[in-house]
Amino acid sequence: MSNQKVVVGIDNGGTKTLIGIVEQSGKILVKKQFPTDINDSPKTHIEKCMKVVNECMEKAGMNDQSLLGIGVNVPGLADPKKGVLIHAPYSGWRNVPVREHLQEKWPGIPIHIANDVNACALGELVFGRGKQFENFLWVTISTGIGGGIIIDRKMVEGEHFIAGEIGHLVVEWEDGKLCGCGNRGCLEAHASGTAIANMAKGKLEIEPSSITAKSVAESAYNGNKAALDKYRQAGNYIGRAFSYAANVLNPGAIIIGGGVSLSFDLLEPHIRETFQSAVIDETNKNIPILQTALGYEAGLIGAASLIYANDLKGDE
Amino acid sequence: MSNQKVVVGIDNGGTKTLIGIVEQSGKILVKKQFPTDINDSPKTHIEKCMKVVNECMEKAGMNDQSLLGIGVNVPGLADPKKGVLIHAPYSGWRNVPVREHLQEKWPGIPIHIANDVNACALGELVFGRGKQFENFLWVTISTGIGGGIIIDRKMVEGEHFIAGEIGHLVVEWEDGKLCGCGNRGCLEAHASGTAIANMAKGKLEIEPSSITAKSVAESAYNGNKAALDKYRQAGNYIGRAFSYAANVLNPGAIIIGGGVSLSFDLLEPHIRETFQSAVIDETNKNIPILQTALGYEAGLIGAASLIYANDLKGDE
Repeated sequence: MSNQKVVVGIDNGGTKTLIGIVEQSGKILVKKQFPTDINDSPKTHIEKCMKVVNECMEKAGMNDQSLLGIGVNVPGLADPKKGVLIHAPYSGWRNVPVREHLQEKWPGIPIHIANDVNACALGELVFGRGKQFENFLWVTISTGIGGGIIIDRKMVEGEHFIAGEIGHLVVEWEDGKLCGCGNRGCLEAHASGTAIANMAKGKLEIEPSSITAKSVAESAYNGNKAALDKYRQAGNYIGRAFSYAANVLNPGAIIIGGGVSLSFDLLEPHIRETFQSAVIDETNKNIPILQTALGYEAGLIGAASLIYANDLKGDE
Repeated sequence: MSNQKVVVGIDNGGTKTLIGIVEQSGKILVKKQFPTDINDSPKTHIEKCMKVVNECMEKAGMNDQSLLGIGVNVPGLADPKKGVLIHAPYSGWRNVPVREHLQEKWPGIPIHIANDVNACALGELVFGRGKQFENFLWVTISTGIGGGIIIDRKMVEGEHFIAGEIGHLVVEWEDGKLCGCGNRGCLEAHASGTAIANMAKGKLEIEPSSITAKSVAESAYNGNKAALDKYRQAGNYIGRAFSYAANVLNPGAIIIGGGVSLSFDLLEPHIRETFQSAVIDETNKNIPILQTALGYEAGLIGAASLIYANDLKGDE
């Protein structure tokens, strides 16, 4: 085992930071988490990360010679080429040279950084159902909705690193709800976990302040018509957005993850119905829409895949 | 001049086939066209093409040693990897091994085939405004609407070679017009040249049977409010579709061509207004939306660029 090469994944979240050592197989050897303190300076936060990386390596009985690389994901905008966190809305951090900071401690070791949703797409490519596709769209449906695009087994970043903004496709032009982005009618405002919970407030026998997408789903599974209806609405809107992505990209599959994807069976028939009414060509109509098989640690696996995916496609 | 290497472009259209010899600069040295006879077998049509290629080469004082390659575009579905025309709706031709047929006469010479809209996108990349962008969306707005996607200066084909179907993004869910594809509310059904002409029928003092997008544009330029309104409607719908493509792809630019793009100034303010209300991030809001500078022979230039673009990106 001492000759084994491994990757360190750093999964930065708004409330917690999860760090782990991930094998080539995707198995997590050791992991450790600590609360993200948004009052920390970026440098202090990165130093905390470094300390925990060391603890994990020690626990696994490994030293830096075993390190194939370090993958870091952030819930915000990243420039993967420069290795810089451009902006993390949750903490207000801007223009943090993450790679440079980490490189001081680990010179010569590949270090990659990416937006967390894009990292999940890569995780799916390397370790999940994406293995079997050359081209696919990854969509995280959680409190918000984000997407990542894989073409020819590579991540599409876009001109300014924001390709894949599936959550901000306008799916309702007539009666659009206000979205956090400032526009109206975005998918995120109509079909995210937050949106599903909001739609159900006052419609279910649940105390409004404690309604979540999960509790709405539980009611739906118990046959509650209003709850089923909210998932039907969300599914139809997701189907609209997926039709746009499919007509533009003609992907081999659409793979969804995130908390709301756990209620995939409530959404799927409605996604499919709307989707098929709005895509051209039989090949698009038959695109598989799949639920991720990666679980709770998809973010950490995704961070590690930033290194393993580059391994796959060769040096760049 | 005799040492100059050139490309032959074959631009197959539903009514005419245009063949020309195109220099590296994009200049057309010689060209010749003949009517496309859809009753011809594919093989007969290709033999006619070969004959005209020979005539053009002779007229240019060149022989096959001067040939850098042959680019062929078709108004239909093509498999660029196999060099096969999968389906051309206008003639009903299916599974025609175009490259194989031409290769018999020109062994060892690179021969590429593509869908005509994709070829236009590549033409824009190599010879047009696309030269300055790494990533852009090409959209042809003509009797129909089609698109081509360039990412990292390469064509995105999609899993089944139909990426870029901008014309079939549903832009009207409530009161969608029936589209030729069988769906309702597609951009093509609401904003193509055909759609603009249809919308204006009975609204202008023009004999309905002779209304075209061009005559509606002429009325609009003369200040006719109904005509201006049709271009406003079309522009708003185009803005919706462009917002989807931009949120998905985050391109560096959107470049439009085709007959209707000649009325760009009638459309542009309305495209821009809707577009900006529906894309996320300042970088997307500021995406340049440009009119192609390539003219009437964009198709032929596009066919030639199938060879010159491969030259750009190296052998594949």
